[in-house]
Amino acid sequence: MALVVQKYGGTSVADIERIQAVAKRISRSIIEGHRLVVVVSAMSGETDRLLALGRSVSEVPSAQMMDILVSTGEQVSSALLALALQDRGHAVLSLCGWQIPITTDAMHGKARIEDIDVTRLEGFLESYQAVVVAGFQGISSEGRITTMGRGGSDTTAVALAAALSADECQIYTDVDGVYTTDPRVVDNARRLDSITFEEMLEMSSLGSKVLQIRSVEFAGKYHVPLRVLSSFTEGVGTLIRLDKEDDMEQPEVSGIAFNCDEAKLTVRGVPDVPGAAYQILGPIGEASIEVDMIVQNIGAENNTTDFTFTVHRRDFDQALKILLKISEQLGGLEVIGDANIGKVSLVGVAMRSHAGIASRMFKVFADENINILMISTSEIKVSVVVEQKYIELAVRALHTAFQLEKP
Amino acid sequence: MALVVQKYGGTSVADIERIQAVAKRISRSIIEGHRLVVVVSAMSGETDRLLALGRSVSEVPSAQMMDILVSTGEQVSSALLALALQDRGHAVLSLCGWQIPITTDAMHGKARIEDIDVTRLEGFLESYQAVVVAGFQGISSEGRITTMGRGGSDTTAVALAAALSADECQIYTDVDGVYTTDPRVVDNARRLDSITFEEMLEMSSLGSKVLQIRSVEFAGKYHVPLRVLSSFTEGVGTLIRLDKEDDMEQPEVSGIAFNCDEAKLTVRGVPDVPGAAYQILGPIGEASIEVDMIVQNIGAENNTTDFTFTVHRRDFDQALKILLKISEQLGGLEVIGDANIGKVSLVGVAMRSHAGIASRMFKVFADENINILMISTSEIKVSVVVEQKYIELAVRALHTAFQLEKP
Repeated sequence: MALVVQKYGGTSVADIERIQAVAKRISRSIIEGHRLVVVVSAMSGETDRLLALGRSVSEVPSAQMMDILVSTGEQVSSALLALALQDRGHAVLSLCGWQIPITTDAMHGKARIEDIDVTRLEGFLESYQAVVVAGFQGISSEGRITTMGRGGSDTTAVALAAALSADECQIYTDVDGVYTTDPRVVDNARRLDSITFEEMLEMSSLGSKVLQIRSVEFAGKYHVPLRVLSSFTEGVGTLIRLDKEDDMEQPEVSGIAFNCDEAKLTVRGVPDVPGAAYQILGPIGEASIEVDMIVQNIGAENNTTDFTFTVHRRDFDQALKILLKISEQLGGLEVIGDANIGKVSLVGVAMRSHAGIASRMFKVFADENINILMISTSEIKVSVVVEQKYIELAVRALHTAFQLEKP
Repeated sequence: MALVVQKYGGTSVADIERIQAVAKRISRSIIEGHRLVVVVSAMSGETDRLLALGRSVSEVPSAQMMDILVSTGEQVSSALLALALQDRGHAVLSLCGWQIPITTDAMHGKARIEDIDVTRLEGFLESYQAVVVAGFQGISSEGRITTMGRGGSDTTAVALAAALSADECQIYTDVDGVYTTDPRVVDNARRLDSITFEEMLEMSSLGSKVLQIRSVEFAGKYHVPLRVLSSFTEGVGTLIRLDKEDDMEQPEVSGIAFNCDEAKLTVRGVPDVPGAAYQILGPIGEASIEVDMIVQNIGAENNTTDFTFTVHRRDFDQALKILLKISEQLGGLEVIGDANIGKVSLVGVAMRSHAGIASRMFKVFADENINILMISTSEIKVSVVVEQKYIELAVRALHTAFQLEKP
């Protein structure tokens, strides 16, 4: 008998039939003897419907009011799932975030969990077979309903698992695990039985959107074993491992992440003096634009350097405007922008101990005649920016070259 | 500057346009200098939608889960109205029942308010121009969300007005006040400028469904001046009076209530001995069937009597079955049932001091050749049961005879 936290996303509870299917799955876990805390998202489409309702009455809706509105989505799905479980004869309870309570900061719409008091919840787990919790929401110290932003139900599940010292946190979604890369691009992409937290962080932040990145960080920090499974098919999914097994046993590369939603910006001829990077990136950060890759090369002439970074494509225009203003202040430097790029990354903890991954990667690009625009590396990944049109070709070539289809 | 509680029903917030119209009306009250607590129902149709959702996952849905589900209706409308008010530049707050808190008993689906702690609310009224409250809901002492059943938003508004010692509680609905009778039946039915609490209780319980009866009782008990107004048209509505003005000044009859949703049941030849009424009505009450009129005549033969009462028509079959069983135990008495009836009542506090109202009423029935099946009187009303087909004729004839079209 284990204490398991299960989380079901919006597509898993999209309609009555799927809620019944989820109830059946939970019922099986109960009958197997597990104690369960089940976190649910809103039925898919419901959050968007509520957001649209709010925007239709107010042009600049306050985040505080939107939280009251949007949090009803999870309240409805948690009550429906609890009803379906009661209908199967189980003793269950349904709770909103404030009832546990899950205390968050007051950043409405993107609140962060500050504290979870599980005293009452542990009591309920003595008398109920399962407790269904509305995900994505909490209560601020001022007593207001807060939401954690998109994907916050994953965070709720992981945080509850951590607070309860649960044996496992299972994230049920519409994919049956984490793959070596996107199966829509590479036919023989392979489901990984397990992956380390660090790899998962790189994989999800780089575009394999299986889990919300914050929930993975959280799980890693609090040593919560995390498993990604499909709520539609049977299977063991992918375990996101706690323990650092011997890296030598690991494959050199675990997976290939990629995305096409970034844009790159370059300032040429930046004076190669202390403070230059800050002068450029300071105003970008102040505008709340998140920067992903940053590359600075030693410049050739006059002790100047070229400074390049990538941002989300939606922030491209604003970032470009800021850079042009800065370049003017710095004496009219050249600014180059390119929104027509993509990024491919090889990820694997074993890179630490295996030399030559990067050079083998670059050879694949050379063989395919793909020009590399930017390179950035970390201990467990190598990222390369290329023209967007080459992305799928690059991913397929790398998947074959590193034999990722083989276990 | 007054402290006013306003309540808007489901049809008043049925869609975005109506929510904007309500916001405009509230905005005017704010600009006039009033401090406002606004109670809202769910957008019309929403409660039914949520109930249907719940029933679609569970054949016998638990009332506790249904409360979690259904209470989101008011949460959504309160947030939307608050957003619309913010959009008009007002500082407003939106609160659920549990946030105030409105403490109720644990009778899920039909909870009764036990306590309202207005300490926080009074604080909010210092810093906000209006506080929007989700009606119809509260929290039990176990910390569970409760709902008060249909019409509970009226009760919420009145209870808040009482707890806050508000200057007036305004119930906005789709009619512009309380009429002498249903204008759909009598063309020249007249809106009453005011009516006493006692009259209103008789009017609403007898079928003029303007206000939930429990909220009127509540308002009367706690001396909350109550006003019924239309949220669609301008006007002063009808004030439900606190003060007992000189009854002599009052018209003899304030209004005519009627309904066609009752059925009558008679047990003939009941032994005229103590306990007979209890033997008959005890089992009816135990089956949670509510009895409206009760009439017992002195019987002619063998010290027996005829015992007649009315129930809601939906309870007719069950009540008949119970009566047949009782009559068997009492030695095979005759049981007569009639679901094809209607009830007409004259209501007016001035009846106390004006003799002869009943006899004038009966003359109207005689003139129209309508046979009276049952009569029941109280201090401020006379109710008559007739065949259902005569109801509209009776109402029109009485309205004319008592000159209710004249102020």
